[in-house]
Amino acid sequence: MNRLDVTPVAWDGDAVRYLDQRALPHAVRHERARTVEEIEAAIVTLAVRGAPCIGIFGAYGVALLRATLDDEAAFRAAALRVRDARPTAVNLAWAVDRVLGSEDMLAEAQTIHREQIAMDAAIAQAGLDLIPKNAKILTHCNTGPIATGAGGTALGVVIAAHRAGKNPHLYADETRPLLQGARLTTFEAMQAGVPVTLQPDGAAAIAMQRKAIDLVIVGADRIARNGDTANKIGTYGLAILAAHHKIPFYVAAPRSTFDFGIEGGEQIPIEERNADEVAAYGGARTAPEGVDVYNPAFDVTPGRLVTAFITEYGVIRPPYADEVPSLEHRPNVSVLMR
Amino acid sequence: MNRLDVTPVAWDGDAVRYLDQRALPHAVRHERARTVEEIEAAIVTLAVRGAPCIGIFGAYGVALLRATLDDEAAFRAAALRVRDARPTAVNLAWAVDRVLGSEDMLAEAQTIHREQIAMDAAIAQAGLDLIPKNAKILTHCNTGPIATGAGGTALGVVIAAHRAGKNPHLYADETRPLLQGARLTTFEAMQAGVPVTLQPDGAAAIAMQRKAIDLVIVGADRIARNGDTANKIGTYGLAILAAHHKIPFYVAAPRSTFDFGIEGGEQIPIEERNADEVAAYGGARTAPEGVDVYNPAFDVTPGRLVTAFITEYGVIRPPYADEVPSLEHRPNVSVLMR
Repeated sequence: MNRLDVTPVAWDGDAVRYLDQRALPHAVRHERARTVEEIEAAIVTLAVRGAPCIGIFGAYGVALLRATLDDEAAFRAAALRVRDARPTAVNLAWAVDRVLGSEDMLAEAQTIHREQIAMDAAIAQAGLDLIPKNAKILTHCNTGPIATGAGGTALGVVIAAHRAGKNPHLYADETRPLLQGARLTTFEAMQAGVPVTLQPDGAAAIAMQRKAIDLVIVGADRIARNGDTANKIGTYGLAILAAHHKIPFYVAAPRSTFDFGIEGGEQIPIEERNADEVAAYGGARTAPEGVDVYNPAFDVTPGRLVTAFITEYGVIRPPYADEVPSLEHRPNVSVLMR
Repeated sequence: MNRLDVTPVAWDGDAVRYLDQRALPHAVRHERARTVEEIEAAIVTLAVRGAPCIGIFGAYGVALLRATLDDEAAFRAAALRVRDARPTAVNLAWAVDRVLGSEDMLAEAQTIHREQIAMDAAIAQAGLDLIPKNAKILTHCNTGPIATGAGGTALGVVIAAHRAGKNPHLYADETRPLLQGARLTTFEAMQAGVPVTLQPDGAAAIAMQRKAIDLVIVGADRIARNGDTANKIGTYGLAILAAHHKIPFYVAAPRSTFDFGIEGGEQIPIEERNADEVAAYGGARTAPEGVDVYNPAFDVTPGRLVTAFITEYGVIRPPYADEVPSLEHRPNVSVLMR
């Protein structure tokens, strides 16, 4: 596979340049958003996806609109359209609000982007010590550069280990129903030159048993004070399989993923998604019409199954009920990075 | 869903009638094979699949050819074409040889069919006691009537529990890569009136945790003397998840699935299948070109993770190293059934 320019988001002077993730892995297509309509459409159509990536894109988008819309009311309305393009993506509203509240909007957007790069780099650096030489590493879903708009989280650690000469081999679960592992993780690994093997989710147990997997590393959507971790459906099962095979199970995530307001995973609601994600594929129906479907978007892995968390503040080990809350009031990593 | 005629194989006087499994679950299409070409094509194209089902179909096919081909050499050549249509399906060669060695070939084919029905019914009956009322039952792959040409094995137990008024609810893993759960198990359950919920394979752990699954029941491809069980990829992981959640894990299989010649699962070779089964779907590629793929067709579950085997001779419990070999020399169940 040729090395391609896979920069997820970039400021381009008179446009926000972005990688159209819908075309991956078949085509690497960069587009330029110049108007509020184009910015909104890129987010709504999932051309730009991954919560941190959307935040960076929205921040640049609002800075661009500030430069192109003279009318104050028109600008405010446009900025709110960007902010609300995906109501559930916390990073988007947070980034847009931060840009709107700043004096130099472009500088603020660039700071948000730089902070993400610094945060991801710090996570990768912290994780490096946990990766033995020639490690066989199993991962689930997609946690690479295109998910964060910077270096990635769990996959960022694997790429860093590769660059550090540790010679890792990645096993990527395809991650049904949306196949982020098959479509994106394999693509990003191949682009980074990391040897990668794709497998069905159901092959994880035999891979641990017969391929001598050394460790599992995944990302997270939300982590409670006791270490209970919500992540893509399939993660909880993987953690049980890792424990059974006595393989370390690591979660790589920035502090912003920790929800210090909740004690445990039972307080995390589980979103159930559309039945057609499971019952159909690419528009073609695979299961009988009218079949009942259970399609939870994520599951919750108990903290006791997590060997350690890899954060921009270093590696966090049990007891999590003590160690996780201590993260809350540390100085911002972007300050540490300067 | 309307109740349809889903008889997998039937003798039709001047043809062998079969359900075209390739069209499922979208269309229920019965075809009639009359010539050696039609019989061979039905097997080769996987219109008829499931090892016991192919055996019954091949047996009727040879009986039909005996009735239609007067020339002895032409008949023998045609019978061998049927016998070799799928060289790895043990049941096919076994059934054809049995018919060829009999005096009344149609009567022998009908006996093979009746024996399969009796065997599946005996398995279903043996399993019934293990199913509590209102049980939530998780299964993997397809083990229903169309897989055996009779009543099915694991799914046969669930259907029997439904008919006995035990009100089971079935959770069916979609079973990647070939989606036998999504395509066939949901279809057969709906046809039988069993309430069924389809889920991605990665949702099995959260289903055990949050849907209060009472038991897991699966089929088997090959079982060693110590109870180690080869079955569809994903089964081993499911057995670990069941043990973790303290849920019984049952394997339903006839004696013919036990390989008394091997001591343990390490002697069972693992077939690896085509990468495109994982890297593409319905002809459309999902993963990058050239990606390496690990696609084992099955895995081996250690006997210590199997709560019990459900056979036509009753329920077999540990210690398997003593109990499994005792099966070998029991009288044929077809004798018991008469």
